Amino acid sequence: MSSSRTPTLALIQMNCSSSAEENLKHALSQIDEAVKKGANIVVLPELFLGPYFCQRPDDKKVFDLAEAVPGPTTQVLSEAARKNKIVLVGGSIFEKAAGKFWNNAPVFGPDGTLLSAYRKTHIPEDILYHEQHYFAPGDTGIQVIETPFGKICPLICFDQWFPEVARIAALKGAEIIVYPTAIGVIDDEVEENITGNWQQMWTNAMLGHAATNNVYVAGINRIGREGAMSFWGGSFIADPSSHILSIAKDKEEIVMATCDLDRVKALQDAWMFLKNRRPDQYGDLTKPVQNG
Amino acid sequence: MSSSRTPTLALIQMNCSSSAEENLKHALSQIDEAVKKGANIVVLPELFLGPYFCQRPDDKKVFDLAEAVPGPTTQVLSEAARKNKIVLVGGSIFEKAAGKFWNNAPVFGPDGTLLSAYRKTHIPEDILYHEQHYFAPGDTGIQVIETPFGKICPLICFDQWFPEVARIAALKGAEIIVYPTAIGVIDDEVEENITGNWQQMWTNAMLGHAATNNVYVAGINRIGREGAMSFWGGSFIADPSSHILSIAKDKEEIVMATCDLDRVKALQDAWMFLKNRRPDQYGDLTKPVQNG
Repeated sequence: MSSSRTPTLALIQMNCSSSAEENLKHALSQIDEAVKKGANIVVLPELFLGPYFCQRPDDKKVFDLAEAVPGPTTQVLSEAARKNKIVLVGGSIFEKAAGKFWNNAPVFGPDGTLLSAYRKTHIPEDILYHEQHYFAPGDTGIQVIETPFGKICPLICFDQWFPEVARIAALKGAEIIVYPTAIGVIDDEVEENITGNWQQMWTNAMLGHAATNNVYVAGINRIGREGAMSFWGGSFIADPSSHILSIAKDKEEIVMATCDLDRVKALQDAWMFLKNRRPDQYGDLTKPVQNG
Repeated sequence: MSSSRTPTLALIQMNCSSSAEENLKHALSQIDEAVKKGANIVVLPELFLGPYFCQRPDDKKVFDLAEAVPGPTTQVLSEAARKNKIVLVGGSIFEKAAGKFWNNAPVFGPDGTLLSAYRKTHIPEDILYHEQHYFAPGDTGIQVIETPFGKICPLICFDQWFPEVARIAALKGAEIIVYPTAIGVIDDEVEENITGNWQQMWTNAMLGHAATNNVYVAGINRIGREGAMSFWGGSFIADPSSHILSIAKDKEEIVMATCDLDRVKALQDAWMFLKNRRPDQYGDLTKPVQNG
């Protein structure tokens, strides 16, 4: 039913067990299910092949799980995209390349081509989120990918908190920004009176990107309990006016919405945020970070 | 009751009649009312001295209303700040200086000192928002002002849609960003099926700034019908986790909330968004705007 300008987007909110084989198999069956329901674009969560291993800062064995991109997992995902004639954002994969390690979101076209392999730009380092022990800061830059179902920009999890890269995506013509994610609350670490409601803040950050850039925005989270973390799900699709079209509950679920991509340019032309920017006033944004 | 680190913020959501004298008098009485209720910081709406004249693109007589900053209106506002021992953000004023015209938000300290005079950076030009016919693009840069009640950054209305300047405010140490505003829906121009719910989008844009910068954010709108526009009010104060503490309805109202400014650094330290920025990746943000 969907034409290339009104694709149906599907987010696979899933549990991730300790078996990579099982997780991949489960992801493939969920992709098939989404396609049966009419999906043209399917997005998996971040690092969906296993538990969120960055809870531990020093698990040397984890590095054995890293793989090449393209490599064995992307080969399977490529086949799933080709078979179903969809655009597939393969969540993200723990990538090893030339002795370095990255958090990589591969995007496949409907003919199975690997269209891009974005490396996560912003890497957190925090209690139970020890990603700087595992991933180098991304070096690919922000990638906006022309697909038969619109211009898609993959960003990954912690990138959500940086309006800088959402804006760059919009400037490069993105119509849909997707954020494969692994985020949850931490036992004993949630002082809600100080830090507030994490899921609300996470949702609002991305709704802000939709509102200020007039693009579709989707967050795709895992669900379930792993060690001391409870991943909250809450995957959602927002339209270019920041209205939530569809949102998941706290269980496994396929979140779907049809996106009218012509609304992106219609809203951008109506509000003229991109046109009325003042880059001469933004010099502070590119100054090195002051630590301390 | 409030100490300097837990100031009470008050937003004056008001109607603006055709009499500048009446509007100023009304604003002063609302300031007094807010102070009676415990306000330490009071913010007026954008261009509160009169109707939103930018509905018309070519009203030459309007330029006669422009005044110097400091000038007659800031003198009165200064006295109101001094008398009440508050920080006062004087909405914004149509400023004339050296033959040019600006949209200027003056900020006064509790001793009446004019601490800063920020000129609106982003100027819209749209149906019934013909601001580029009246205001030059601001040349003051983003100003974060050290006051006895915290570090405050005044931005103005259309600046709301530019996460660039909210981020710069946070990088400069802002604890509270305030947006004096004049925004409403336009008769016959609202195609909600395309452009969505304007107020929701407006609110979400600012909640996004709160979430991604972990600062207090306040939008202060006028209310009422003027010509073909209906200003929606909806003034609100959000905390550094983007939770709305207080929000106005569609009538005249003083919106108040107590701000625990130490939560700003607590959340910024907990989430580390500012620390983990990648300015080397943000070069596209400072490239000149491509029109077309």
